[in-house]
Amino acid sequence: MLRTHNCGELRKAHLGQEVIICGWVQRIRDKGGRAWIDLRDRFGMTQLIFEEGSTSEQLMAIVRTLGREYVIRARGVVIERLSKNSKLSTGDIEVQVLHLEILNEAVLPPFLIDDETDGGDELRMKYRYLDLRRRPIRKNLELRHQVSRKTRFYLDSHEFIEVETPYLIKSTPEGARDFIVPSRMNPKQFYALPQSPQTFKQLLMVSGLDRYYQIVKCFRDEDLRSDRQPEFTQIDCEMSFVEQEDVLEMFEGLVNFLFKEVKRIELTKFPRLTYADAMKYYGSDKPDLRFDMRFVELNEVIGDTDFHLFNAAELIVGINAKDCGTYSRKKLDELIDFVQKTQVAATSLIYVKCKLDGSFKSSVDKFFDQDALSNWANLFKAKPGDLILILAGKKDLTRKALNDLRLEMGDRLGLRPSSKFCPAWIIDFPLLEWDEETKRYHAMHHPFTSPKNQYMDQVDKAPESIKASAYDLVINGVEIGGGSIRIHKRALQSKMFDALGFTKAEAEEQFGFLLGAFDFGAPPHGGIAFGLDRLCSLLGGAESIRDFIAFPKNSSGRDVMIDSPSLLDEEQLTALGINSEKK
Amino acid sequence: MLRTHNCGELRKAHLGQEVIICGWVQRIRDKGGRAWIDLRDRFGMTQLIFEEGSTSEQLMAIVRTLGREYVIRARGVVIERLSKNSKLSTGDIEVQVLHLEILNEAVLPPFLIDDETDGGDELRMKYRYLDLRRRPIRKNLELRHQVSRKTRFYLDSHEFIEVETPYLIKSTPEGARDFIVPSRMNPKQFYALPQSPQTFKQLLMVSGLDRYYQIVKCFRDEDLRSDRQPEFTQIDCEMSFVEQEDVLEMFEGLVNFLFKEVKRIELTKFPRLTYADAMKYYGSDKPDLRFDMRFVELNEVIGDTDFHLFNAAELIVGINAKDCGTYSRKKLDELIDFVQKTQVAATSLIYVKCKLDGSFKSSVDKFFDQDALSNWANLFKAKPGDLILILAGKKDLTRKALNDLRLEMGDRLGLRPSSKFCPAWIIDFPLLEWDEETKRYHAMHHPFTSPKNQYMDQVDKAPESIKASAYDLVINGVEIGGGSIRIHKRALQSKMFDALGFTKAEAEEQFGFLLGAFDFGAPPHGGIAFGLDRLCSLLGGAESIRDFIAFPKNSSGRDVMIDSPSLLDEEQLTALGINSEKK
Repeated sequence: MLRTHNCGELRKAHLGQEVIICGWVQRIRDKGGRAWIDLRDRFGMTQLIFEEGSTSEQLMAIVRTLGREYVIRARGVVIERLSKNSKLSTGDIEVQVLHLEILNEAVLPPFLIDDETDGGDELRMKYRYLDLRRRPIRKNLELRHQVSRKTRFYLDSHEFIEVETPYLIKSTPEGARDFIVPSRMNPKQFYALPQSPQTFKQLLMVSGLDRYYQIVKCFRDEDLRSDRQPEFTQIDCEMSFVEQEDVLEMFEGLVNFLFKEVKRIELTKFPRLTYADAMKYYGSDKPDLRFDMRFVELNEVIGDTDFHLFNAAELIVGINAKDCGTYSRKKLDELIDFVQKTQVAATSLIYVKCKLDGSFKSSVDKFFDQDALSNWANLFKAKPGDLILILAGKKDLTRKALNDLRLEMGDRLGLRPSSKFCPAWIIDFPLLEWDEETKRYHAMHHPFTSPKNQYMDQVDKAPESIKASAYDLVINGVEIGGGSIRIHKRALQSKMFDALGFTKAEAEEQFGFLLGAFDFGAPPHGGIAFGLDRLCSLLGGAESIRDFIAFPKNSSGRDVMIDSPSLLDEEQLTALGINSEKK
Repeated sequence: MLRTHNCGELRKAHLGQEVIICGWVQRIRDKGGRAWIDLRDRFGMTQLIFEEGSTSEQLMAIVRTLGREYVIRARGVVIERLSKNSKLSTGDIEVQVLHLEILNEAVLPPFLIDDETDGGDELRMKYRYLDLRRRPIRKNLELRHQVSRKTRFYLDSHEFIEVETPYLIKSTPEGARDFIVPSRMNPKQFYALPQSPQTFKQLLMVSGLDRYYQIVKCFRDEDLRSDRQPEFTQIDCEMSFVEQEDVLEMFEGLVNFLFKEVKRIELTKFPRLTYADAMKYYGSDKPDLRFDMRFVELNEVIGDTDFHLFNAAELIVGINAKDCGTYSRKKLDELIDFVQKTQVAATSLIYVKCKLDGSFKSSVDKFFDQDALSNWANLFKAKPGDLILILAGKKDLTRKALNDLRLEMGDRLGLRPSSKFCPAWIIDFPLLEWDEETKRYHAMHHPFTSPKNQYMDQVDKAPESIKASAYDLVINGVEIGGGSIRIHKRALQSKMFDALGFTKAEAEEQFGFLLGAFDFGAPPHGGIAFGLDRLCSLLGGAESIRDFIAFPKNSSGRDVMIDSPSLLDEEQLTALGINSEKK
């Protein structure tokens, strides 16, 4: 090694020792007769000291040629600092340098390499290798490493085997768009990159592997949002001879273990919410349970009214924003704007201020008297000083809009601290959902999800009413994982493909290998997959997943650092038998 | 769980307990009044017993409907076996079944699911999920899991961080062919799948990560041989502030650790061979050192001779096959055929039998007398009873042919047992090799490899004489890993690209991001990558890597189980802006 110690490990115990350390120049302070360098590496920061008199003139001259981010190697003696720095683990000592070697020079970085930086997003992404020098970003990668390690430890100790499944697989039109890969050896034919190892992990169960996991890259060619990447990482798991309860217990255990090991937080037993309740009380299948503010439906209590909006509404539903009854006109207008913005089709926001004197002031005073408003307030358990916010309209859209508003109010009221973690299982998802556009059912989870036992014989009869053995893990309003008990019999899987509008030939062509496998004795099985990127950003207390990915892509799917994707040689395309279409 | 115990854990300690176990029917023996089922799962095999009298008639009837590979669930009482089976960990007990449920039926498998199978390669690959039910194949996957686990443990404890690098990267013409991925969001542009994370791990060193590793899939679109797969797995590692010696020591440590933990074998200090010596003494840069049989060169001792073959030969070189002096004409003819077959351009094989009476019998008796032959025998340290085998011709081809012959003789003499492990570091590789076809230098390792210190200033002067700080780890004639100290300064890296025939524009276009990164303070760094598939097959004592990959592809790059690659919808191709060329 070019060093005897790293920049984070020297202590008083090393006083008097001659050491060699290497690293990057973080800062130079030159006070004429004396100069200090803060030398940085992954492990920490160590102060080097140079003093005229004891330091040779030649060495002092070298020090004066150094700049920020130079890579140097310093040999010297560990001495005690006059003014100690208690914020630094090496703050008791400094190294009096005897010899210094410049390992590499550095031009001035395009942004400040420090905990807080002046670099904008695009610049930081272009010079991602410099951004990664910043402690907060490095800490994110270290956290990710810990999460992966602890995940493997937990699963290994529960007899799961990590098995690598292939990346060059087969395209299936179901679900999101595949990335495809032309095959040179099989002209005109294409591989696809996996959206998940779903069918392979099921085949591993058919093969009797019993417990499988894999931390694995998956690929989806979707239009990207801030929290989506074309390639992302899953903790992918599957178990045999299990029922839903077994899977929930095993993976609640995993999440508990991760929080304990990585965050030193003991979570309590995860509550469970049916999909129907989650939609009814939070307007979302991923409710943020860090705060209550449940939805209250008013249709029944309001009944017939002259107020047209309510009368025509499929759903009238509201929330109680505690202590917001004193909101000014300006603040209320902000909320009205917010609702309009987040949800184009949303109707106006109705409010009821519960005044401190016990009276009510609402935007629908013309239609509802104090008794009616008092009646509503009771339903919302609203106290004087509270603010009731109500939306009305089509059920799905109104719930979605009120969910957005609920989260906004949560933010305004400081009810969503990143240090608080409220997990919940969402269960009893519908098996299928009707798609108006294509006039067919789509699998809500995926086509391999099993109906709950009591619905087993209804797949070909009343598909819309069927509940699935499917479950999501939601923490703080973020979907961290999801899974299901799978179908393990050919007959049922075929019926499922029928219900989804596959012809027999399509089902056979795309999933014949899986149907075939079920003929040879498939065990009951089920599993789950967690989004590692999101799990890490949640544990790291951040909103975006990008800072937990070493080399992320931007919202156009580009890696701006390496400038990819890029044009190819005609030669390369010809060898693959493909033309890039003239557009 | 559908079971209380698995099929591998019941012992005498469980006698009298009521248990539920699940698994696959391995075998049914029905002796009329009594029937037994061997029930199999990943964890082992347990015997179920059914007896007329104590077993209900209804249950006996169910048992008689079962077939091989049915998935069943049995509840019963653990009893002591009358005739114990000491080969089975559960061999002291059996389960007297009270209730039995068929979880899934099974049609007859296309081949025998047992340690030895009657299934051919293609059939086993088509029904890979059934092949994986066989214990030897499952053991291979378990071994692979262990190797990955122990690798991570070792590297974690040496402060390496596992970082995931991207799969959708940029195509570079250097090296093997890339698999490419069309980008829908960036029309006419393509990603490439990584042949290795080489440039990314170097950027992680520039970012100060200090020690990186990743167990990662890599992709090469090459024509396949039996030990090659289009996707393969690397243990990819990189360290900062190191010299070659540090890397060798760290990873010799890793390999030692793996052999100790996985095989209970203590390896001794790995010998080191220069590339030049490996070629000279074994004709290969991956010599099998389980046996000696070194090459002996004869050019000097033979000098001028009437024997034209020798006289015209660039190299005359041979080996001593101990105790083969009594080979019959037929056996010698086999060897002559072998040489002809493995190496088209090889000249005839010359032999010298060292007879037991101290005399010599050779195929060149016409040209060389007993004294000359005796002289040769001394050089080969040949004793009476030995057989000297000599080839002559162009240096490279002759060495290659003699290497093949040496390995063949090793096999014939039983000198290559799969239970013996002889690792070695091959060092001092040439930096560049001249390619006659393209009339330019190619990087022997890759363009980022650093020359050894003493050659630093010769890259633009005498490229062919330069030795690189590159190293391979070879075990039993198989290249298990390879790496190098990297170039970390822009000026040297540019000179290297020049030497390789890159124009400035090409270097900038393809590797500008790396050259740019070196401007900002790159530390000295180096690393290594191991082929996990090969390492596992070596540890598993097998020749082929396929049986250590859950779902391998065949030699045409096809996955015959899922039938991939496959044709795509026109619609899908159109969305990507590519045409599949009419051929």
